[in-house]
Amino acid sequence: MMRTIGIVMLLSASLCLAQGSGDFKPASSNVLDAQFPQVDSSSRVQIRFRAPDATKVRINFWSGEKADMEKQPDGFWTFTTKSMAPGLHYYTIVVDGAEVSDPGSTAYFGGSKWASAVEVPEAGADYYLPKEVPHGQVREVWYHSSVTGTWRHALVYLPPDYDAQTKTRCAVLYLQHGGGENETGWIRQGKANFILDNLIASGNTKPMIIVMANGYASRAGYVVPDLTGKPFGSPEFTKVMQERMSAFEDDMTQALIPFIDKTFRTIPDRDHRAMAGLSMGGMQTFQVTFDHLDLFSYIGGFSGAGNPFLAGNNKFDVKTSYHGALADPAAFAKRVHLLWIGVGTNEPERMKTGLESLHTSLDEGGVQHIFYESPGTDHEWQTWRRDLNDFAPRLFQPVGQQSRVDHGR
Amino acid sequence: MMRTIGIVMLLSASLCLAQGSGDFKPASSNVLDAQFPQVDSSSRVQIRFRAPDATKVRINFWSGEKADMEKQPDGFWTFTTKSMAPGLHYYTIVVDGAEVSDPGSTAYFGGSKWASAVEVPEAGADYYLPKEVPHGQVREVWYHSSVTGTWRHALVYLPPDYDAQTKTRCAVLYLQHGGGENETGWIRQGKANFILDNLIASGNTKPMIIVMANGYASRAGYVVPDLTGKPFGSPEFTKVMQERMSAFEDDMTQALIPFIDKTFRTIPDRDHRAMAGLSMGGMQTFQVTFDHLDLFSYIGGFSGAGNPFLAGNNKFDVKTSYHGALADPAAFAKRVHLLWIGVGTNEPERMKTGLESLHTSLDEGGVQHIFYESPGTDHEWQTWRRDLNDFAPRLFQPVGQQSRVDHGR
Repeated sequence: MMRTIGIVMLLSASLCLAQGSGDFKPASSNVLDAQFPQVDSSSRVQIRFRAPDATKVRINFWSGEKADMEKQPDGFWTFTTKSMAPGLHYYTIVVDGAEVSDPGSTAYFGGSKWASAVEVPEAGADYYLPKEVPHGQVREVWYHSSVTGTWRHALVYLPPDYDAQTKTRCAVLYLQHGGGENETGWIRQGKANFILDNLIASGNTKPMIIVMANGYASRAGYVVPDLTGKPFGSPEFTKVMQERMSAFEDDMTQALIPFIDKTFRTIPDRDHRAMAGLSMGGMQTFQVTFDHLDLFSYIGGFSGAGNPFLAGNNKFDVKTSYHGALADPAAFAKRVHLLWIGVGTNEPERMKTGLESLHTSLDEGGVQHIFYESPGTDHEWQTWRRDLNDFAPRLFQPVGQQSRVDHGR
Repeated sequence: MMRTIGIVMLLSASLCLAQGSGDFKPASSNVLDAQFPQVDSSSRVQIRFRAPDATKVRINFWSGEKADMEKQPDGFWTFTTKSMAPGLHYYTIVVDGAEVSDPGSTAYFGGSKWASAVEVPEAGADYYLPKEVPHGQVREVWYHSSVTGTWRHALVYLPPDYDAQTKTRCAVLYLQHGGGENETGWIRQGKANFILDNLIASGNTKPMIIVMANGYASRAGYVVPDLTGKPFGSPEFTKVMQERMSAFEDDMTQALIPFIDKTFRTIPDRDHRAMAGLSMGGMQTFQVTFDHLDLFSYIGGFSGAGNPFLAGNNKFDVKTSYHGALADPAAFAKRVHLLWIGVGTNEPERMKTGLESLHTSLDEGGVQHIFYESPGTDHEWQTWRRDLNDFAPRLFQPVGQQSRVDHGR
């Protein structure tokens, strides 16, 4: 069924291409008063960037077009994209070889820097927009971690009425960003707070606390080597990533969770604790939760789940991976209330194959789980917004009902 | 006394110049893993920026050096500053005419865009750093404003123990950013939360709530004209600013304050409500508080106070300005518990003159107030961190003790 929807949406996008209405308006992701980027009702994006003395200026959509921009007589360079999928698209501009952000865009932390992005609205979808419903608060907290030896910053979403209902305790979802992003991603890019506000207001999602930590951690005393010229996948990069994954796991279980349970009115047991993450955050989720099934009972991997560092290029074996945590499907189903994995149908082949093969392995191994495909979206935030919108209503429901929750999307 | 300290500090900075130890380390304001910018113990800053095909790359410290950077054989451009004053210095890089941010820097909202900045430590000063003291939380809130017809975003600092002591109510300081900045400035750039954590822990500052709103507001239906090519000071720019000042005043008094008093455990009266702001935020503070002395009794203007739009080029007349709110000094002193203005000794002449002439006018008019000079700092955040550190301990103290508070700095 999901696949059918996907094809219809993709066809609609193609039809739009032919129309090209040209009613361009400043994007909702722009900074105050910035006239560009603009988006039209055909989901085309216009970029305009001032570089009067440059020889060559290129647009670089990370999951989209990469092309030369056109120089205008007024010193600005312009580019208009084809129709884009809905969602938030990261981009940078390359000015005579310098890869920089667009000053017209809000800065979103991605690619290990404060990058640009443009929001392309999704027709008919308002589940991630602020609406006239009670709003939760997002809190910034600082906790001292004995693992890293530093003060660490995290964001915490508290549901509406958390302050008013001082006797109520809440379940907690730990929700992680992707590689090159940070703890701000799920709020700034993902709109997780508005998604939860709207879900809770609709009555089918339990009010919950969401904790968003920084997924990069280094043990006290560990000196991160300079990774200049060491790309993703190189042994040096992988070693740093493994070291950080392990430090993050300890920071989360030894410092963050105790801090959250002490600071907020949580229900501090495994039945009321979930973890999910996107891409790198999904890998972290699998590592942390399968190592600590005493702490978690709901697990979500968004466009990233099986850990290539543990299992070799996303190869996953139900019997042996994660210390055999899934080896006995019946015991696993009793213990883990929800195992949820998802991927966008337009994600790069490597990502799709990884998740699909995980899905197949789980099916073949008899491990109950949900496999969700986001139609027409890439390895980008619209996929992960949809993931959260499908995942969150399934959490902390009466046991056995997680897979039957249908919130009408 | 302040002036003397200022001179000593400036001399020290000059002496450091001669030493130039060259022990450069990545700045604390860098993004994770970024090796540049770097700062050495002589407060010199090294910038390194990749632009392999550029013809000309310039460094642009907004309150500092503006110069050509030097091309290196590896495609990077480098520049080393002279010794800089302590604090957070905004800068941009100009690549063949394109003014852009440095991807190595955290993005700070300034100059109406997400700009770069480098933190130069102040020897011996740790009042704005996170320490082993109880930490307050910073909350993000969204409130619907009937004035603007939109959801508006604000940050709220709550003191340590706010959650635990559910019977305690707190006084509130409304604290505004400067022109071209937004509601994130006082936390990201200003470190207001750490300043308050440390002041409260020291025992001489009342635990208080700080509300940081976005100083830009437009009435529902108002269409902001395109200000391209209309600089600060032009009639078009001024008209928009006046319209926004007025919309902000109504938003603050009609939407924000009622929302805050409804949402948090405040003491909702004028004796427990303060307002302060920097630069444009100082002008807004004077306008809002003098129009609403029924709402506020503590007033702070940091490097900006007398409103040039109301009084003509910062000319201020005690008898007539602000509808005569200060015309009767005795009545004013009874009603307003603290009037505090401050300026950095290295600020541009226009700023200094404005504040000094306001100080003189207030003195001559017999209006009780505090005039604080931050030694050796410019129209930058180190001045405003010091301002807050001096201002906050004077708030909400027993009447008449505001000017006698001495917190050992």
